[in-house]
Amino acid sequence: MNEAHGRLRARFARIATIEEAQAMLGWDAAAMMPPGGGAARGEQLAVLAGLAHDLLVAGETADWLAAADPGDDPWEIANLALMRDRQRRAAALPGDLVEAQARANSACEKIWREARAAADFGRVLPAFAQVVRLAREAAVALGEALGVDPYDALMEGFQPGVRAADVAPIFAAYEGFLADALPAAEARQIAPRKPEGPFSEAAQEALCRRMATRAGLDFAHARLDRSSHPFCGGTPSDIRITTRYDEADFAQSLMGVMHETGHALYEAGLPSAHARQPVGQAAGMAVHESQSLIIEMQACRSDPFLAWLGPVLRENFGGEAAVYAPENLARLWRRVARGHIRVDADELTYPAHVSLRFRLERALIAGDLAPADLPAAWREGMAARLGITPANDAEGCLQDIHWYDGAFGYFPSYTLGAMAAAQLMAAARAAVPGLDAALAAGDFTPLRAWLGAAIHARGSLLGFNDLLRAATGKPLDPADFLAHLRRRYLGAG
Amino acid sequence: MNEAHGRLRARFARIATIEEAQAMLGWDAAAMMPPGGGAARGEQLAVLAGLAHDLLVAGETADWLAAADPGDDPWEIANLALMRDRQRRAAALPGDLVEAQARANSACEKIWREARAAADFGRVLPAFAQVVRLAREAAVALGEALGVDPYDALMEGFQPGVRAADVAPIFAAYEGFLADALPAAEARQIAPRKPEGPFSEAAQEALCRRMATRAGLDFAHARLDRSSHPFCGGTPSDIRITTRYDEADFAQSLMGVMHETGHALYEAGLPSAHARQPVGQAAGMAVHESQSLIIEMQACRSDPFLAWLGPVLRENFGGEAAVYAPENLARLWRRVARGHIRVDADELTYPAHVSLRFRLERALIAGDLAPADLPAAWREGMAARLGITPANDAEGCLQDIHWYDGAFGYFPSYTLGAMAAAQLMAAARAAVPGLDAALAAGDFTPLRAWLGAAIHARGSLLGFNDLLRAATGKPLDPADFLAHLRRRYLGAG
Repeated sequence: MNEAHGRLRARFARIATIEEAQAMLGWDAAAMMPPGGGAARGEQLAVLAGLAHDLLVAGETADWLAAADPGDDPWEIANLALMRDRQRRAAALPGDLVEAQARANSACEKIWREARAAADFGRVLPAFAQVVRLAREAAVALGEALGVDPYDALMEGFQPGVRAADVAPIFAAYEGFLADALPAAEARQIAPRKPEGPFSEAAQEALCRRMATRAGLDFAHARLDRSSHPFCGGTPSDIRITTRYDEADFAQSLMGVMHETGHALYEAGLPSAHARQPVGQAAGMAVHESQSLIIEMQACRSDPFLAWLGPVLRENFGGEAAVYAPENLARLWRRVARGHIRVDADELTYPAHVSLRFRLERALIAGDLAPADLPAAWREGMAARLGITPANDAEGCLQDIHWYDGAFGYFPSYTLGAMAAAQLMAAARAAVPGLDAALAAGDFTPLRAWLGAAIHARGSLLGFNDLLRAATGKPLDPADFLAHLRRRYLGAG
Repeated sequence: MNEAHGRLRARFARIATIEEAQAMLGWDAAAMMPPGGGAARGEQLAVLAGLAHDLLVAGETADWLAAADPGDDPWEIANLALMRDRQRRAAALPGDLVEAQARANSACEKIWREARAAADFGRVLPAFAQVVRLAREAAVALGEALGVDPYDALMEGFQPGVRAADVAPIFAAYEGFLADALPAAEARQIAPRKPEGPFSEAAQEALCRRMATRAGLDFAHARLDRSSHPFCGGTPSDIRITTRYDEADFAQSLMGVMHETGHALYEAGLPSAHARQPVGQAAGMAVHESQSLIIEMQACRSDPFLAWLGPVLRENFGGEAAVYAPENLARLWRRVARGHIRVDADELTYPAHVSLRFRLERALIAGDLAPADLPAAWREGMAARLGITPANDAEGCLQDIHWYDGAFGYFPSYTLGAMAAAQLMAAARAAVPGLDAALAAGDFTPLRAWLGAAIHARGSLLGFNDLLRAATGKPLDPADFLAHLRRRYLGAG
């Protein structure tokens, strides 16, 4: 590596350190901050974002990028390519557009909260139309700079290496599958018995900590707190996960924490030799989601793990043995239902929620769908996919924050992640013969070791499909996910 | 105000916003961060400090300072003077000295923790000698830039407008007073009865919140958490105070929280029209300490307030009425004792701890005291002031973090603050006839209103003595503090 490359490493480390500060302040805003702190926090985050952006688009950064020689190390070669991508994205957007977006998104998000509470899309429409207008402008500018379609340019910002043209047939295949699978799964499912609460928050929290620790989360480098929307934040050596507690139902916090623990294990397992370098960071939101879902959906809701978990839960919360029998837990936590709300959706129908959003946001960015027509398009899409129609926009197109905060192109990551998780689990089972036996003993070690080597330690060395190829022998293949759904929900194989 | 002045306002607002981020991350490090987060946090704080410093010493900042015209507004005239001071201080220190200090202080502070635990000054001496060497170098550079003595230049960084030559006779007067007052106070005090615990942390915390709210802290803009060293941090609209709980003694948390609440009320009451400007910030650490001590020492340990507090405590914690009688609470919480530890010291002897440190740190910076000779000088100073000799250096010169972290010139602020608090309380009593009657009803409103107008709302418009003159009619006058001690501990007047 030459001097220019060394300077770039220092520059990007500085940027990443500012982003760490932003991450901690973001966690604080969600988990700790008193309500009156919001205005000052907004300023703090905006100033830090501006400082990081200034460092990225500074003239010397461009000069170093032009002069950099990464040498022969594949990590540094990948690192430089990622630096170029980040700089190109940042430089593609004029400063006044970035500022206008920040302002419009923040204003719209506030109005959206009221609009959702009132189930009144009309209230947020003017602000939302402005957000869409600016997002389209940004998408065009990014697309031109990167030589891709505008929507792809947005998607690339969340999950590098994935295009709409790759995603569309995957959703089509899933939709074809779901049309038969959903009624079939509904027809064969048996009503579960529910554990009887209340389950105290303290007892739930203790269980969550114990299970997260068992999955490999090290609380010397992590915290578990509460927030209204659970997330995993912080930095690799200081991870902050959050959850919420429902005293009538401990599954929400338990499965939620296992989900966030999956994210956390990924962050903790990133290659520390490349800390704060682009190549040392997570490989995108779809990969991140695969790591949360492989823990929550693939491992924790599997038959072997439920067989181990049942007695542990009974010991914790008391109640009849039959309620904690693995077949009852499976009925309870793998129940399929046609619902309106994405975040409450089961594993089988969740991708239908995502495919709807994918189609609609692609049309919004292309200009084929006017913001005013969103509610009708939503109702139509839900009817077509799940055969249900939301009673109002709060349980329809107002339910998610993403668009109203300017995030277009994120949604596909959820389903790409679910599919990647199934594919990774199949590969892990093939590579590690004792994997299910370990889960049946409540032991995540073999799964975590395999994920650590196959995914976590690779950081951003490989793009989405190359990473899956290195880990599983093939690029993303929805067949593994569909096979998993068939086994779990249709009793196949 | 001209354009250059406007640009300076924007520049200093940006710097202050970075400092707000630092304040939040500092709070998190003390109150929330898991142990493994320390290294990353150190980097985050260092990068933010570097960014703020770069903005302060940038060429354009100097150009704007040269060209600025603040107009006729006294706030902007003061603001510009404060901006010049800050820039001059920052520019006086070469970047490599600042970095060397940051590194040496951080290294020494870590070793100090071990050395204190082992009561072994020798272990930290090499690192400490380096810290002193660099602090002396910085003091000389600052002193030259500001045209003052090196030690004064350091003190100026904590409490602008105060010089060692002003402080030395104040301590001399106090020491003369203490020689007779301490044995006299000891002779007349009566052993108190102690409330019998345990007092649950939850009950203590609830009481602390209630009392802080009563004093005027608005929890929509504040939090109360735990840390091993209580402090007040955060930002004016998002204040973070901390305490620690001893289940055997609720007074530690209660009086500690009232102390931090005094700091918090000052921050919350700063002039919001000048938020993030130098003139809108607190007027220095001695003024800050006066605000914590006027709440904790002057108000909360006063006879009228104790008379109101006793029944409240009994209702909270139960126990015999006699224990909560105001005269017993006064015996308990105004007890005088010759101790080794500054932070545990009573109000009468506390300044003796400070005067010792003032004399020693002045000698260290002047080069009149070698770091290796500190333990002996400490023992001698304690014997001369309080007639006691520490058994080891852990209860001697190793007890406080300040010097080992590179902070010289801070200690006098504690006693200047105590003296200012007494002076302000006397002025408040004279100006507000119903002040004690209100305290006797548990009502802080009149005191807080007076402090709000006399101190908080003035930000940094006036220097230390001018602020006191505006509030009390005279510059700092230790006579009010000594009169207060005579009344409270010697039964005078």
